[in-house]
Amino acid sequence: MRTRLTDAFGLKVPIIQAPMAFVAGGTLAAAVSLAGGLGLIGGGYGDADWIEEQFDIAGDAPVGLGLISFVLDDQPALLDRVLARSPRALFLSFADPAPFLDKARKVGVPVICQVQTFRDACHAIDLGVDVVVAQGGDAGGHGQSRGTMAFVPEVADEIARRGSESVLCAAGGIADARGVLAALALGADGAVIGTRFWGARESLVDRRLVDPTLAHTGDDTIRTRVIDSVRRIDWPERYSGRVLRTTFVDRWNDDDAGLRSDLPAQEKLWQAAIETADTSVLAPFVGEAIGLVGAADDAAGVIAMIQADMQEVFGHLTGLTSPA
Amino acid sequence: MRTRLTDAFGLKVPIIQAPMAFVAGGTLAAAVSLAGGLGLIGGGYGDADWIEEQFDIAGDAPVGLGLISFVLDDQPALLDRVLARSPRALFLSFADPAPFLDKARKVGVPVICQVQTFRDACHAIDLGVDVVVAQGGDAGGHGQSRGTMAFVPEVADEIARRGSESVLCAAGGIADARGVLAALALGADGAVIGTRFWGARESLVDRRLVDPTLAHTGDDTIRTRVIDSVRRIDWPERYSGRVLRTTFVDRWNDDDAGLRSDLPAQEKLWQAAIETADTSVLAPFVGEAIGLVGAADDAAGVIAMIQADMQEVFGHLTGLTSPA
Ligand SMILES: Cc1cc2nc3c(=O)[nH]c(=O)nc-3n(C[C@H](O)[C@H](O)[C@H](O)COP(=O)(O)O)c2cc1C
Ligand SMILES: Cc1cc2nc3c(=O)[nH]c(=O)nc-3n(C[C@H](O)[C@H](O)[C@H](O)COP(=O)(O)O)c2cc1C
Repeated sequence: MRTRLTDAFGLKVPIIQAPMAFVAGGTLAAAVSLAGGLGLIGGGYGDADWIEEQFDIAGDAPVGLGLISFVLDDQPALLDRVLARSPRALFLSFADPAPFLDKARKVGVPVICQVQTFRDACHAIDLGVDVVVAQGGDAGGHGQSRGTMAFVPEVADEIARRGSESVLCAAGGIADARGVLAALALGADGAVIGTRFWGARESLVDRRLVDPTLAHTGDDTIRTRVIDSVRRIDWPERYSGRVLRTTFVDRWNDDDAGLRSDLPAQEKLWQAAIETADTSVLAPFVGEAIGLVGAADDAAGVIAMIQADMQEVFGHLTGLTSPA
Repeated sequence: MRTRLTDAFGLKVPIIQAPMAFVAGGTLAAAVSLAGGLGLIGGGYGDADWIEEQFDIAGDAPVGLGLISFVLDDQPALLDRVLARSPRALFLSFADPAPFLDKARKVGVPVICQVQTFRDACHAIDLGVDVVVAQGGDAGGHGQSRGTMAFVPEVADEIARRGSESVLCAAGGIADARGVLAALALGADGAVIGTRFWGARESLVDRRLVDPTLAHTGDDTIRTRVIDSVRRIDWPERYSGRVLRTTFVDRWNDDDAGLRSDLPAQEKLWQAAIETADTSVLAPFVGEAIGLVGAADDAAGVIAMIQADMQEVFGHLTGLTSPA
């Protein structure tokens, strides 16, 4: 399997593991990269010491780093510090990546820019980022509402129309070979996969949460602001986070004002739930693809499974298009 | 191209044209069926005289009929009347199809059941419907929030797990060969296409609306209840309709109570906008795939284009999976 993504990064499979904040550390990222994908540390809200630690854990494995762009706005020194670790790629998402591109380019770090609207995709193409990720709202974690299915080919058309060199990846709802091949059919050069790696053995997720979460169907997730409110993280208005629906989420989803007015008590409840892994309260950031993930595997197993199944799915398509 | 869908209905392409209320009449349905797809009359809210007229217009072309299931609950006589026209298929969506299956089966009319949640998909599989359509919220028209990308393979897995004979189609965000091939990769046997046919020359859409609507990107649609409120159509709570965003939609989207309290005046405004084709008010039911539709074509042209491009997209995939 060779695509413009595998060529750009020397991968065996056209798969980027999503830089999931608090979930993707150096162990997961290294395991993915060593298995032939592109592993990324989820630098999230920009705790520089933690990020450096994760690079140390990853060791020699060629891993990249994801950062939330609006966090960089407030911490200009962070970018220099993380670029000094020579990440395999810098994955930026949420808010304008423009102010950070020059520094990354100067040290030869490729920039991957995840966007949630066609408008932002056009901006990323304008900027000439190395990789554009068209993220559908089907995805786990923060995002907006465009669906992966129509969003990806629309961005592919725009890249072609402009003769842009940017590589295109699809994100949102992709968890197996079927999704990866669908992404390629839609015109992408690869797929960003989060939810499938969320439960991987190398992730930093509390293991008590994994099996109960994987037992859910894709119907059981929702886009909400509740989790950001209770964590006091001030996300820009247009982004919400897709999480597993729990009693806590359902209680507050339509009453953000109520939640904020009772915040100290609700925060305590949330913290206590973290201690006890209370699945009626805690709402892990996972996407609709949770309905496609049956059991936790390790990262190498996930990638080997996708690699093997790709042949099978492609064989199935060949049978349909060239019937005997 | 042969799939379980093309085999079941003797089609040349694995494409069902969506039974779009007020948009898909006998002319469009017949054109699609004659071009090798499965054309459906959009019976919508169940105006029996109009439906019969459309069957007359379709003439000998083997077209099916779509009905909104909760409408049938209120009009039990309607089902007998439309089944007497020997539709090629009965496409049911929204609410429980169970009460209507026996009658269709007795006269040998295949039933296609469009579902919006995994839960409802399981119910449709239980009922043994001929075709299950997994509709993502990316779709134009009424629906719910699941994204097409992860929903389709999840239903495919369930069909396989149960050894069910039901054929599976994907709906939502599919407008070209890339989408159809992606649907097949995800495990579907075919695709339901609405938005792409919305602007087709044979549709019943006011032609003054077509070009202005097609000029929009996929960012410009939204799921809302505004249009149902102003039309006084009482949809069950869980469904909203995806439409093009207009000034009118933005004005009322977060203020349904306000709209309902000023309904007579707003209704007048809406009716006047229909007369003048006022695109700042009227919000056609179209999906995110509107960003993939550049110009209106006729139905045969759409199908020929998809057929030709399928070869190209498949050739592209072959190149990726078996690199030189
Ligand atoms: C647990 C979790 C945390 C995430 N955190 C981030 C993040 O910090 N930064 C980011 O750009 N994207 C983040 N995402 C979104 C991913 O980049 C990606 O778009 C998404 O996981 C793809 O969809 P999928 O979950 O269906 O595979 C996160 C996703 C998950 C599931
Ligand atoms: C204008 C329009 C009207 C629709 N009306 C109906 C309807 O009456 N009954 C129904 O089951 N689905 C209806 N749908 C939804 C379609 O069945 C289908 O799910 C959808 O069009 C597929 O997504 P797409 O629009 O992205 O192709 C409608 C869709 C559109 C665009």
